[in-house]
Amino acid sequence: MKDYKPKSRLTAQAYIDGVLSGSRVILSRAITIIESNLESDKLLAKDIIQHILPASGNSIRIGITGVPGVGKSTFIEAFGKHLINQGHKVAILSIDPSSQRSRGSILGDKTRMEELSNLENAYIRPSASGETLGGVANKTAESMLLCEAAGYDVILIETVGVGQSETAVHGMTDFFLLLMLAGAGDELQGIKKGIMEMADMVVINKADGDNIQKSEMARLQYQNALHIFPQSDSGWSPVVTKASSTKNIGIDTVWDEIIKYKQLVTDNGYFYENRNQQKIRWMYDNINDELKQLFYGSKDIASKLDVLKKDIISSKISPVKAAQKIIEEFKESF
Amino acid sequence: MKDYKPKSRLTAQAYIDGVLSGSRVILSRAITIIESNLESDKLLAKDIIQHILPASGNSIRIGITGVPGVGKSTFIEAFGKHLINQGHKVAILSIDPSSQRSRGSILGDKTRMEELSNLENAYIRPSASGETLGGVANKTAESMLLCEAAGYDVILIETVGVGQSETAVHGMTDFFLLLMLAGAGDELQGIKKGIMEMADMVVINKADGDNIQKSEMARLQYQNALHIFPQSDSGWSPVVTKASSTKNIGIDTVWDEIIKYKQLVTDNGYFYENRNQQKIRWMYDNINDELKQLFYGSKDIASKLDVLKKDIISSKISPVKAAQKIIEEFKESF
Repeated sequence: MKDYKPKSRLTAQAYIDGVLSGSRVILSRAITIIESNLESDKLLAKDIIQHILPASGNSIRIGITGVPGVGKSTFIEAFGKHLINQGHKVAILSIDPSSQRSRGSILGDKTRMEELSNLENAYIRPSASGETLGGVANKTAESMLLCEAAGYDVILIETVGVGQSETAVHGMTDFFLLLMLAGAGDELQGIKKGIMEMADMVVINKADGDNIQKSEMARLQYQNALHIFPQSDSGWSPVVTKASSTKNIGIDTVWDEIIKYKQLVTDNGYFYENRNQQKIRWMYDNINDELKQLFYGSKDIASKLDVLKKDIISSKISPVKAAQKIIEEFKESF
Repeated sequence: MKDYKPKSRLTAQAYIDGVLSGSRVILSRAITIIESNLESDKLLAKDIIQHILPASGNSIRIGITGVPGVGKSTFIEAFGKHLINQGHKVAILSIDPSSQRSRGSILGDKTRMEELSNLENAYIRPSASGETLGGVANKTAESMLLCEAAGYDVILIETVGVGQSETAVHGMTDFFLLLMLAGAGDELQGIKKGIMEMADMVVINKADGDNIQKSEMARLQYQNALHIFPQSDSGWSPVVTKASSTKNIGIDTVWDEIIKYKQLVTDNGYFYENRNQQKIRWMYDNINDELKQLFYGSKDIASKLDVLKKDIISSKISPVKAAQKIIEEFKESF
């Protein structure tokens, strides 16, 4: 793959001024710089981030997940419109590490949220692409900072409830919302236990028509299931509610609960404590990724590992000794 | 802390010959070398491991966990005696990273298993101590290889069901057994969800006297709960049984189920596939620990990290940029 010449770039100052003045066009172009893999853009991106950093953070960050088919886009459309009616500016981002391969990004198709995307105070951005979850998560988190600097005070970060990207979203948001459907019994099947454990709120979506009774049963079932998890550090007890995104029922309740949560965790100090911890963890995650990249990214190491693996399986060398040997070789290679 | 002069050491060949001949005394002294933090002993340990490696592996490795109070030592005593009556040689090891601090190692007090420890074919060794879980786990896993080379064909590795050491034990055993008690309702409270998910078998212990009915209810409850987890790669469906260690009821069933498991996974190839994967993972865990040690073990890095953390919290630098900066400095330090 050859590097291509970037289309005309602005100066760092022009991006910074544009973002801080709330220009959607400049915001979009700045996020493109963040997402770019060109070395010159990476330097530019660092410069932009560094300067908008003090203006970021003034928002509530909400992670939203749920398996495909749960009605995430319909929910986000209804929820986003409700927020805008309340006077908020809403940015919708996503983490979807699969988007590069499948080209079917969960937010790639903006028409999924047609009404919302036409509103002045909504900003929708499809998932960044990238080789690794860590890389994609970095780009989304940095885009979030830009959106905040541009005046968006509610950030929704969407992901698909099937993989590891939930943990990444949970690590960069203040509130984690899980969408579920009333099903035929095995309610807990679809979603991984660990995701359930992260949820501050579970919303049983599509609770309308023939589905209302089943949804109320599912609600009770989840409310009971959530009791088996230990209390979160936030002091908040997870809430389970029903909603119908298409009929616009229960959407206001979701926001009301989030406001209650924000009040609680602001009062008890968890809100900023958690954000500080998230920032520190974000640094450590990057350090650990870079360390692994430094080691495993070397072609020499990769071929040596292949030999060692064969020797380990045939009991020629112990795993511990193999590790020490290759680390010694790595140190000498500097 | 000053290094002390080791007591008289044997030659590597003497340890190797002694272990391979099944000498309990030499086995114990060889494990002491494995557990030692002296540099000269580390070299000796590598030499010993390297030579006994081809003679290791001929055993079934069983991980046993459960919260304190569940009756682990009583169970292991009853189970171990049953195995020895069947003609097996049983080694009992443990992983308890807390043992150094508390000095109250879970197996430190051999008198907990008095009858078992007096039997010729039982070998009981308290947990190694160490600063990190990775270090302790390495020592236990290498001690296990020595026990196998000395002819022990059933290895029990005990741990306490409250922390991360379960994952380490699960990563070095063929079969994972979880001990539980019949309780008053919230059966799932005590133990982390992830540990439940690893179990090949759950044994409701202390199922005797007034407890029998409650134990049967708990058994059904767990059997249902285990259904919500996805099927394991081994093809085995986890079993839930009742046992009374003091009355020696249900102990034979535990072993019968393990034999069934061994047959199944030998036939379908999972047994050796899993062991090979465990060995490879063991190498990677060691590599990743060493990489982190290389980086975080540097005093210079530690003080730089403290400054960066403050700058991150005060929004002077972004977490991503902070990580890149310190990695660059790390590379230059070589």
